[in-house]
This record gives sequence, C-alpha cells and structure tokens, in this order.
Amino acid sequence: MIHNNEFLEKAQQLIDVGRFIDSKGWVPATSGNFSARLSDGNIAITVSGRHKGRLVEDDIMLIDSMGQSLDGKKPSAETLLHTTIYKRFEQVQCVLHPHSQSSMLVSRLFKSALVLKNYELLKALTDIDTHEAQTVVPVFANDQNIARLSAEVESYMDQNDPIHAYIIAGHGFYTWGKDVAEALRHVEALEFLFECEIKLYGVQLP
Amino acid sequence: MIHNNEFLEKAQQLIDVGRFIDSKGWVPATSGNFSARLSDGNIAITVSGRHKGRLVEDDIMLIDSMGQSLDGKKPSAETLLHTTIYKRFEQVQCVLHPHSQSSMLVSRLFKSALVLKNYELLKALTDIDTHEAQTVVPVFANDQNIARLSAEVESYMDQNDPIHAYIIAGHGFYTWGKDVAEALRHVEALEFLFECEIKLYGVQLP
Amino acid sequence: MIHNNEFLEKAQQLIDVGRFIDSKGWVPATSGNFSARLSDGNIAITVSGRHKGRLVEDDIMLIDSMGQSLDGKKPSAETLLHTTIYKRFEQVQCVLHPHSQSSMLVSRLFKSALVLKNYELLKALTDIDTHEAQTVVPVFANDQNIARLSAEVESYMDQNDPIHAYIIAGHGFYTWGKDVAEALRHVEALEFLFECEIKLYGVQLP
Amino acid sequence: MIHNNEFLEKAQQLIDVGRFIDSKGWVPATSGNFSARLSDGNIAITVSGRHKGRLVEDDIMLIDSMGQSLDGKKPSAETLLHTTIYKRFEQVQCVLHPHSQSSMLVSRLFKSALVLKNYELLKALTDIDTHEAQTVVPVFANDQNIARLSAEVESYMDQNDPIHAYIIAGHGFYTWGKDVAEALRHVEALEFLFECEIKLYGVQLP
Repeated sequence: MIHNNEFLEKAQQLIDVGRFIDSKGWVPATSGNFSARLSDGNIAITVSGRHKGRLVEDDIMLIDSMGQSLDGKKPSAETLLHTTIYKRFEQVQCVLHPHSQSSMLVSRLFKSALVLKNYELLKALTDIDTHEAQTVVPVFANDQNIARLSAEVESYMDQNDPIHAYIIAGHGFYTWGKDVAEALRHVEALEFLFECEIKLYGVQLP
Repeated sequence: MIHNNEFLEKAQQLIDVGRFIDSKGWVPATSGNFSARLSDGNIAITVSGRHKGRLVEDDIMLIDSMGQSLDGKKPSAETLLHTTIYKRFEQVQCVLHPHSQSSMLVSRLFKSALVLKNYELLKALTDIDTHEAQTVVPVFANDQNIARLSAEVESYMDQNDPIHAYIIAGHGFYTWGKDVAEALRHVEALEFLFECEIKLYGVQLP
Repeated sequence: MIHNNEFLEKAQQLIDVGRFIDSKGWVPATSGNFSARLSDGNIAITVSGRHKGRLVEDDIMLIDSMGQSLDGKKPSAETLLHTTIYKRFEQVQCVLHPHSQSSMLVSRLFKSALVLKNYELLKALTDIDTHEAQTVVPVFANDQNIARLSAEVESYMDQNDPIHAYIIAGHGFYTWGKDVAEALRHVEALEFLFECEIKLYGVQLP
Repeated sequence: MIHNNEFLEKAQQLIDVGRFIDSKGWVPATSGNFSARLSDGNIAITVSGRHKGRLVEDDIMLIDSMGQSLDGKKPSAETLLHTTIYKRFEQVQCVLHPHSQSSMLVSRLFKSALVLKNYELLKALTDIDTHEAQTVVPVFANDQNIARLSAEVESYMDQNDPIHAYIIAGHGFYTWGKDVAEALRHVEALEFLFECEIKLYGVQLP
C-alpha cells in the first residue's frame, strides 16, 4: 500500500512523540500506543508489539474509523480505545497512551479517581485557564476484554463532566488533543502532576 | 521589527537556558518563563504559551520596562513579575522562572517559607560566602491576578531581609542574577537544595 | 584469535545493550555482565572488570559451553551463572545481568521472593498474555562461591514453576531470552516493575 | 605558562570526568572540584568557581605539592584537602570531590559515619574482593576553615582503619584512586551505594 503525504507526516510525528516519551521512561519495553486521525477519517496508529522509543515508518499502520486494518498490518489490541475517543470527539485528532510508573502508582493509591487541583499547570490542559479549576482523572480496572473496557469508559463519559484523560489500573493512561502537539502537552502536564501527587504521599508533613 | 545584536545575543542565551532547564524536567508542557534586560532598559522575554525546551528566536519578544510589547507579540501573563524585579534591583539583568516539582512540593510542605541553612551550596548564591549563612525562600499563594500577586511580592520585599528567590504555591519559583549565567547558577543551586529538603522529609531518621 | 562474523555481530549487540543499560544507571562502575550464545554453542561474553557502558569489541570474549576461555581472555567470575542458563534452556540465546538499585532494594525488602501481579507490563515477559498472570522472582543470598550459588539456582528451578528472572541479594538480577532483543525487553520490563514495587513501599495509602 | 603534555592529558581527563559527573547531577552550579597528580609531584586541579560540567582547558591549573599556584590562577579553597591525600598516599594520583544529594542526605541521616556492607558493588573499591567486607565512610562537620577540617581528616585517618572516601556534612564527598579511572570508579560505586542506603530509609519493610 502506498501511503499519502498526510499519513507520512502524521507517522513522523508519532515516531518523534515516541522517542520523546521513551526518553522519559514512560513506555518501557513494548508498552504504550499512539495514533493520529487523518482528514479522511482514517487513523495512523502504532503496530502491535513494537518498542515506542525506536519506531520507524514501518511501525505505523493505517486503520479505518472502525479500527479495521487497511494495510494488512496488525493494530494494537487496544485500538478500540482510540477509535472510541475519535468517534466521541470530532475535534480530537490525536490519542496518546503512555505507560508510566506514576500512572501505575496513582491507580494503586487513588482507587477510582484522582482529583487534580491547585496546580498552575492545569492551565496546560484544554479549556482550563486558572489553577482554581480542577479536573478528575478516573481510574478503570484493567481488562483484557477491550470491548468491555471501552464500554466502561464510554459509560463513565456519558454520566460525568468532561475529562482530559483516564487511567487504566496497572496499565498507564490515555489522553488526547486537537493535534499531536496538544496531546503531547497533555501527556507532559498530566505526568508531571501525577508525579507530584505520588511524591506528596511519600513525604510527611512537618 | 528588526532586532539589534544585543537582543539576538540575549535571545540565544534564553533559548540555551530553556533547553538546559527543560532537560532537567523543570519546565513541563508550556510552563515557565525567562527574561533578560538589555542595556537600553528594554527586556527580552519569552512569548506566552511556548514550550521552553524548544524555543526558537521567534519565541523571544521585546517589551519595555513597563511590560508593554514593542514588537506586537503577546508577552507572558506573568510579565509584571519580571519587570517588578528589574525595577527594584538595578544590578539584575536576568529573571528566570522554572516550574519544578520540588518547588511545587516545597510549597505544599513548608507553608509560608523555606529556610535553607547548613548547605555548602548556599555559597552559589550571590553574597553568601559560608554554609553558616541562611536564606529564606518565601512562599506566596498562587493568584491569577498578577498585579495583586506582584504587589504581595513587593510588600514582602519591603519588609524583610533580601531574598534570592521566591516560590508561588503550586506554580514554581522565581530567581534572578546580574547576568544569565548567575541567574542560572541560582536556579541550579536552589533546585538542588529544594530537592534535598524534600528528600529529607521522605526518609525516616534511624 | 580471529572471530567470525556471528561473534562480531553478537559482540556489537552486547556493546549496544551495555550502552543502553548504563544510560539508565543499571550497571554502575564495572558491575554487571552480558552474554549471547552463537550457533555453534560457544558463547560471547563480557570480559571481567570492564565498564559495561563503554564496551568495545576487545571487551567481549569467547568461551565454550562449559565456560572455558577460547581466546585467552579472562571471563567474568560469574560465567557459570550464564552457562547454567544456556544448558538448561535450549531456546535461550542471551543472558543479561544488570546491577540496578531497584533489584538491590527488592532483595532487602522482599526476603526470599517478589511476586509480580496485576501489571499489564507482565505481558512483555515471554509466555504471559494477561495482567491476571503472575510471575515469581526468587531472591538468592549473595555468595562469592559461584558454583554453590549456581547449584542453588538450579535446585530452585528444579523444584518450582518456570521463572523469567532471579535476583541475587545486594547484587542485581539475571534474566534471559531467545535473542538479545527479548532479553533486553525483559530487563526493561522487570526493572520498571521492581521500581514500581519499591515506590509503592515508599508511599502511604491515603 | 606553557603546560607540558602530561598536564594537558590529565586536564582533558578531568574535563571529561566533570562532564560525566555533571550529567549525573553530582556537581550542581559551581560545586565540586577535581585534581590529578603529575609525575613530577605537581598537581593539575580545577580553578575555583567554574562549572564542573562545562570545563575547558583554561579551567584547570597547576599547583605544587604544597598547594601553591604555579601559573597565577586561583585554586579552589579546598586545595588543602587534595594535597593532604596526595601527601599521605604515594600511590594516589587522582582526587575527586563530587557534591551529590545522596552524600548530603547521608550526612544528615548517619551522623558520624556510614557503614557499607553486604553489597557486591563494594568490590569496585580498591582492595575489596568480597561483599562480606565492609567499609566505613566517616562524616566530618563542614568547616570554612579548611586547615582545621584537613587536620580533622588527618587525625581520623591516623587513628582508624583505611578508608576509601569521606563525607563533609552538607557538602559532598571526597574519594581517590591510583589514576583518574579508578577514582571515578569509586565515585560511581559510592554514589550508587549512598543512594541505595537513602532509598532504604524511604521505604517501610512489609
């Protein structure tokens, strides 16, 4: 299959994103996956089982909006978690799933949700313009049945205020944005705040 | 607008400082801001909303000593915190504002101020030549009203011994120096000491 | 001795692995050792006493399957721990021994074994395809008598379910794989999980 | 002053050592100092007040065995701590003084001395060949009077078993070796062990 220029451009952005995220230690071994939506509604997404810090163009594949492979490659088992976000949010063009220690620890410490507040860095999240805002990051139980997990995410979103990200217990977090740069800004800001929360629980108030 | 050589030189120094500070993880997402004063009293300062680890010349703008844009770009919302320092201290030519986890944690642990003492590294701070000295780093509540926040900083400085830096709760710290190198030396030394203090609270004396 | 192409290729892979593992801080000073089996049954292994982050071709030597030097160089004192694994597992072609802080701490905290479960990243380990699986990482007392230590490892393996790795107390861990890439994936995944476990013990549940 | 080739070679080694140690965060701001002895008994040592991660040849100066400047540059205030070691140990040709957080924390937690034992990595220290050995790292109070501090170090050494390093409270540690490589191996190994000890005090036994 011959990919068009838009695909190649998005693929390169995902490759760069992977190198950056891996340099921080947030996609160990072959964990994590990334995607970007093209203007025709198809999606560039990382192939299953590759190391995200050492991606090459061949490690990015094309799926349609339902998650079906368009080029014969095998998409990540978690593809449905990506397509669900794209279907729900017309303006979202990139979904990133890092697998960081801090999101792992948050899911152990804060059972069903972490509430982030009183951080200036909340302003790095879309539609937040003051540290007096707060955002809830729900934590879902891990599940190898991705359809069931996806349905749980959808159900949560149907019934709650808008969220910027969610965590899967022992598995990392998902966040998204209107382009790759915005999604990556969310990754950086959320990871920083997760780490702050974890560190606060490791110290004792004087 | 055509910038003169002095502006271009300072801009390059701020770009380099940004890359260094970001490599340490102290300006996540688009947080932080940096400035340097020129010999004519105008100020080179980072444009609002850019990633400080990936600055290019176009991300540095020119303002006058009152904080008014001289080249049509939009300065950081926190510009007033920079101009206040320059107005107060004739010898200061650089103001740096990193947004580090340790300054975040210090503001949670040490409510109104952190006292640093018994550290040899205090000697890296201007006018300190022995570890027997001490320096107070006041912590101010975060405030989206920068004029009010700036007035609080001024009021504190009017009534207290000279300081080398201050922290804004949940928001990072401000420090300064007679040139970019000195301000950066302060950043490195203070961040190191903040981290030491935090780590001490994470351990239990045997 | 003139080495064949297969040796040179494996040597280069071990050099690259060393640079990567050292960049993470998992082989301080001259600690750690690495090996890869060749198709004729001989083994390329790191020479004793070299810094694993700065290996050159001359730091990789050739031994036979019994651990005897074939090129006059002196192999690591722990060579027997490598050859024991190769003898036991026909499909294993690479053994890696990092010397990380987290494996050090695990051996202090979890006396005889660490049980890893409820981590999605377990799926990075060979033959595990769900986070509902678990793997036991046994901890053996350190012993300068490598024959005795090796016998203890063998005895454990004879009597227990298959393992992916073991820790030597105060000394680091051993893991292996069907090729250098798989063994390195195990190193990355296990180290990440060891760090998670350690960090969990450094925080207090709210 | 025209320096000979031996000086230039040692200067380059100290420059490289500085870059490595700074990359680890162990010489923040302008802290730390390094030296190497030449065959004629004179000593190449870092000039006072330079950033050790960005040394150039001009930042290394020549002193005699008594610590007197031979090239008009100003040596570190702590020069006497270097010359004392060279005078005492004929075989020592390099002295390194990093200023790491872990040595800072060790001096707060372990008042007068840290005893390192049960670590395989002890074998990276000269004359230790088993993890069953132990080494004492004494902690001395910081003192701006370097002659007095040096006398205290000497007095300790006169009355105790040989040591591989000592810590100055709130100030970092000194270690040494028969050449630059050995001294750096000691830095890496000791820092790793200091960090392990600190981390152990940050966790709670299950």
